[in-house]
Amino acid sequence: MASSVAETKELENHSDCCVKLCNPNVATMKEDVLYHFNLNTATHDFPAMFGDVKFVCVGGSPSRMKAFIRYVASELGLDHPGMDYPNICAGTDRYAMFKVGPVLSVSHGMGIPSIAIMLHELIKLLYHARCSGITVIRIGTSGGIGLEPGSVVITRQAVDACFKPEFEQVVLGKRVIRSTDLDEQLVQELTQCSADLSEFTTVVGNTMCTLDFYEGQGRLDGALCFYTEKDKQEYLKAAYAAGIRNIEMESSVFAAMCSACGLRGRRALGRCSPLPFFCPAGSASMPFSGTSPWAPHHQHLPSSHPAPKACFWMGWHPSRLCSARLCLACGQMQILSVSPVTHMPLGEMRKMLERPTSAELRFCC
Amino acid sequence: MASSVAETKELENHSDCCVKLCNPNVATMKEDVLYHFNLNTATHDFPAMFGDVKFVCVGGSPSRMKAFIRYVASELGLDHPGMDYPNICAGTDRYAMFKVGPVLSVSHGMGIPSIAIMLHELIKLLYHARCSGITVIRIGTSGGIGLEPGSVVITRQAVDACFKPEFEQVVLGKRVIRSTDLDEQLVQELTQCSADLSEFTTVVGNTMCTLDFYEGQGRLDGALCFYTEKDKQEYLKAAYAAGIRNIEMESSVFAAMCSACGLRGRRALGRCSPLPFFCPAGSASMPFSGTSPWAPHHQHLPSSHPAPKACFWMGWHPSRLCSARLCLACGQMQILSVSPVTHMPLGEMRKMLERPTSAELRFCC
Repeated sequence: MASSVAETKELENHSDCCVKLCNPNVATMKEDVLYHFNLNTATHDFPAMFGDVKFVCVGGSPSRMKAFIRYVASELGLDHPGMDYPNICAGTDRYAMFKVGPVLSVSHGMGIPSIAIMLHELIKLLYHARCSGITVIRIGTSGGIGLEPGSVVITRQAVDACFKPEFEQVVLGKRVIRSTDLDEQLVQELTQCSADLSEFTTVVGNTMCTLDFYEGQGRLDGALCFYTEKDKQEYLKAAYAAGIRNIEMESSVFAAMCSACGLRGRRALGRCSPLPFFCPAGSASMPFSGTSPWAPHHQHLPSSHPAPKACFWMGWHPSRLCSARLCLACGQMQILSVSPVTHMPLGEMRKMLERPTSAELRFCC
Repeated sequence: MASSVAETKELENHSDCCVKLCNPNVATMKEDVLYHFNLNTATHDFPAMFGDVKFVCVGGSPSRMKAFIRYVASELGLDHPGMDYPNICAGTDRYAMFKVGPVLSVSHGMGIPSIAIMLHELIKLLYHARCSGITVIRIGTSGGIGLEPGSVVITRQAVDACFKPEFEQVVLGKRVIRSTDLDEQLVQELTQCSADLSEFTTVVGNTMCTLDFYEGQGRLDGALCFYTEKDKQEYLKAAYAAGIRNIEMESSVFAAMCSACGLRGRRALGRCSPLPFFCPAGSASMPFSGTSPWAPHHQHLPSSHPAPKACFWMGWHPSRLCSARLCLACGQMQILSVSPVTHMPLGEMRKMLERPTSAELRFCC
């Protein structure tokens, strides 16, 4: 079994590019085809297209990620009347990608394999573009356990369906276990941030990442169900006792891949940080519905809708100075403040965001 | 550990509807929300919308499944100039669904979790619509092992990344192993069908279903790669020795769910059949490229293009009497013949396809 320690050592032998890969082969390739993005280093100028990226937000639905980039453009003052945000991945419908200023918004589909493919190609894209000081954020809905619908969960650790804090990958027929830990200090600061906002119920807990939506999450309404309501409740009680507060389908591989690639809060390297997830959580027995206010349908959520919000840091330790409020249902984001102690006017933040070099972007690198 | 035998017994206690569910709860529900299809039994008339469905073709890409339905409409004489095929799942971008006559075409995204969600809701859709005599076919590309690029693989068995012919699901924290067997007799007849056509290289072998596209399939160009070319070749040689001829990411759960729901070739029940997959296979080391003729981009493949083709049966034992030629790259299908011994004129077949009851459709029920 390969260990993450061995993998990390290998990582440190690689080049000193700001975004690191855990693969020495890529640097020697004449051409790199990011097949599922329909992008190719031989035909696209990655540094010109993506070199100024500082924030990457990823989520399941293409339309939600497009709505998100529209709002970001508006918030950053980078929009114009009638402006469109073309899909950078035109020519494939595997994923959709949008960009405005320093923000990239990418869809990842549903489930661990789907987001894993996207993350492999996203990390390579950032590497080829010579990006630095990147923050990657996953946004998404989830099913809550023992929580008021609409609550926000700050994930301490992603766990599997057996409640283990690990992600198992089969590589060349061998099982490799990778860590899914998240930054405890960051969790605490996020909790404080939520308390300061005082606009929604927030809990800190573990997030269970399953490989299946129906049987995997104990639902009683799939095409297959060989257990009872009582069995399900016992499982969810055990999950709750293990510190699990919500369930979704992508968190473990997101945490594991960022960690394996050294994308955690390692200040010396200036890499991007896997932030704890913020998931509006319904009760575990609540069926997801297109009409529920926390469903991922932005068309149900006009800007005045009292949708669930989440606050997250856009920076990372030791300079995680920017907080923002995010509507997780429609992907709309409102930048609120920078620094835990000082607040920066939005105009000043916009100017900082527009600057191309990470050295000047204290709040994001 | 639950066994498929126990599950099958439970299945047989259910109602006598032609499409069976492995869940007694659904029959008692007043309303069933197929959330990821954006369909609801309370607001949609399922029997009116889908009651005449006889064939369901599923594949990863929404655009490919739309191209597929266009071609089916043309082949069945059900198209009109300027005719559009609206997405039945409008309002969500999780999946796309199209229908013409008795054929339903549905996208499923990438990976086991994504296709599993779709299959849960698809099977329930067919149940609510009171469908009978259904044939479900998955079409898709794959990476070949030791094969000429463009070859077609007829899958004997889906296996996991450790070469085991099983699909593992974690249900309420317990590991459940389900069979991924396919009908051996059907495999033999498909092989004969291919020999009769003699238009492409066809092999019978096992298909490996992985949870990851890069590390999971031994690729050397992902963001993470902790093994060498030599390690990879040894793994692929071992896979070849285990009878594996191609690799993809959905076959095991497709086989397992159809099997668990009794959707195999069980003549007494008249249920739909999980057909062996036909995958145009490239060499294992060949990078997928948008410009390769077997890439899933129908825009690269005009009708005159010498694209790889696959032949499959649309019927199932004991009356699998219809063969068809399918371009797996663009999803275009050409109906060739019915019965292994007699050929039916296309016009006659069209008339049969248009008939609503399964009793008259000898070739599909």
